[in-house]
Amino acid sequence: MRLARFTTSGQPGFGIVEGDEVVRLDHRVRSFDHLLAAPVPARPDDPRVPVADVAWQPPAGDHPKIVCVGFNYPAHAAESSRGPADVPTHPTLFTRFADSFVGAGTPVVRPTGDDSLDWEGEAALVIGRPGRRIAADDAWAYVAGVTCMAENSVRDWQLHSTQATAGKNWHHSGAVGPWVTTADELGRGALRVTTRLNGEVVQDDTTDRLTFPFAELVAYVSAVTPLRPGDLVATGTPSGIGLRCEPPRFLRPGDVVEVEVSGVGVLRHGVVDEVPVTVPAELAGVAS
Amino acid sequence: MRLARFTTSGQPGFGIVEGDEVVRLDHRVRSFDHLLAAPVPARPDDPRVPVADVAWQPPAGDHPKIVCVGFNYPAHAAESSRGPADVPTHPTLFTRFADSFVGAGTPVVRPTGDDSLDWEGEAALVIGRPGRRIAADDAWAYVAGVTCMAENSVRDWQLHSTQATAGKNWHHSGAVGPWVTTADELGRGALRVTTRLNGEVVQDDTTDRLTFPFAELVAYVSAVTPLRPGDLVATGTPSGIGLRCEPPRFLRPGDVVEVEVSGVGVLRHGVVDEVPVTVPAELAGVAS
Repeated sequence: MRLARFTTSGQPGFGIVEGDEVVRLDHRVRSFDHLLAAPVPARPDDPRVPVADVAWQPPAGDHPKIVCVGFNYPAHAAESSRGPADVPTHPTLFTRFADSFVGAGTPVVRPTGDDSLDWEGEAALVIGRPGRRIAADDAWAYVAGVTCMAENSVRDWQLHSTQATAGKNWHHSGAVGPWVTTADELGRGALRVTTRLNGEVVQDDTTDRLTFPFAELVAYVSAVTPLRPGDLVATGTPSGIGLRCEPPRFLRPGDVVEVEVSGVGVLRHGVVDEVPVTVPAELAGVAS
Repeated sequence: MRLARFTTSGQPGFGIVEGDEVVRLDHRVRSFDHLLAAPVPARPDDPRVPVADVAWQPPAGDHPKIVCVGFNYPAHAAESSRGPADVPTHPTLFTRFADSFVGAGTPVVRPTGDDSLDWEGEAALVIGRPGRRIAADDAWAYVAGVTCMAENSVRDWQLHSTQATAGKNWHHSGAVGPWVTTADELGRGALRVTTRLNGEVVQDDTTDRLTFPFAELVAYVSAVTPLRPGDLVATGTPSGIGLRCEPPRFLRPGDVVEVEVSGVGVLRHGVVDEVPVTVPAELAGVAS
């Protein structure tokens, strides 16, 4: 099944994507988190909306923990170190706020005054069952499915300090979706993660090359913090980021990025410039 | 005013701390976030609860962004580098999940199998007004007040990789509170941040020595991500962490930590060992 969140006619909804339609389940399932925890099949009397009439929203929980991992494909670790990759002993984790993402089809925002917004295509796990200290062997029982993530990064800010946080959390700088393909449809084989920039393949690798496979990431993260339905664990980006191109290339308004995860789908987004904040005159001088 | 969240007789509430009583406002203010945004005075007919009958909860929003900053006191930056501190050009940000904290008076949890839980006393700003790209000169207009934070860290996990995330997010490893002292009561002078371990002063510094003062932190963080009422911006820990003692010292069950911020109050917490996860027999073998 493909589980999705969306808005249609300005109203939020969620349900199952079937072909060119979305079967709405929001009238009989309490929340998208609940749907992830216990997917239910569509019924003939469920309302249906054409896919063309929905705006995808990130297929995550209402207040998700979003944990990402750096340097998890050896070829990306090597390009990032500009030399042979050190083999890390533990996952390199960072987090993103939910509002650092938009849904599929919505353009991401390039910050005003910056020209270092970079692409990072990834497969992301969507948690379906609450768990803590999950054993790697049991991890798939806690995963609702997989989605695509454009884990875009504002490189200048990422490199301001030793911690990537500032470059990883720009408002609406990344995208996730369009839906969660449930784990039962994916099998346990390698997934191929491909990023295209304006149709050109810029990243392409398979998840059998991950230093820390999906199950080990779930185990590591859940040792630290409880996971809940709707949380996301992004699994790392392949080599081929713009920062390591010669010369470096970054996202510009008008670009189209596609992140494809085999068996899951394609996440497509454009890029727009940030609209400068306009401070109303009566607030412009407000101070302590 | 001192604004607090708590439970009493197992029920959540929030209000104003006055002397030995908490004046409950949860019957007439929609949420603690709303109270931070627009504090209202107590009325004679508001219900009151003795402080002795409440369990403090973190005085943050319902789904807060919690952004912390590393190496912000020069003496701590120096002890961390084990040499002269590089003067950072930008704040070193990391984030914590809300459930990595308990309220004042509740013991924090030392992870099973680890002996590196370290103290980090801090002053934390509590946001009171939504804002993005807030100018430093305007920052105080967006701050509801200040609270105390035990931004405790699991050092072994913090040092697993270049990113501090794993060591900063252990479930219930830190504490925050007991309340928010509103900005109007604090003036704009330096605050003194003191950490005591079993009565012994282990950290002691003043916020006039911060590399990035409160207002600059608000400006930097809000450039990246919108801030909302109830979000926390922790401002850094003074020198004197356990990792840099000779020999290193870490928190053990039975220890009592106090974090005092002058003009704000004292956050006190104990330490207990994690209760091992017991997997029910019927789930022990669950797998994909």
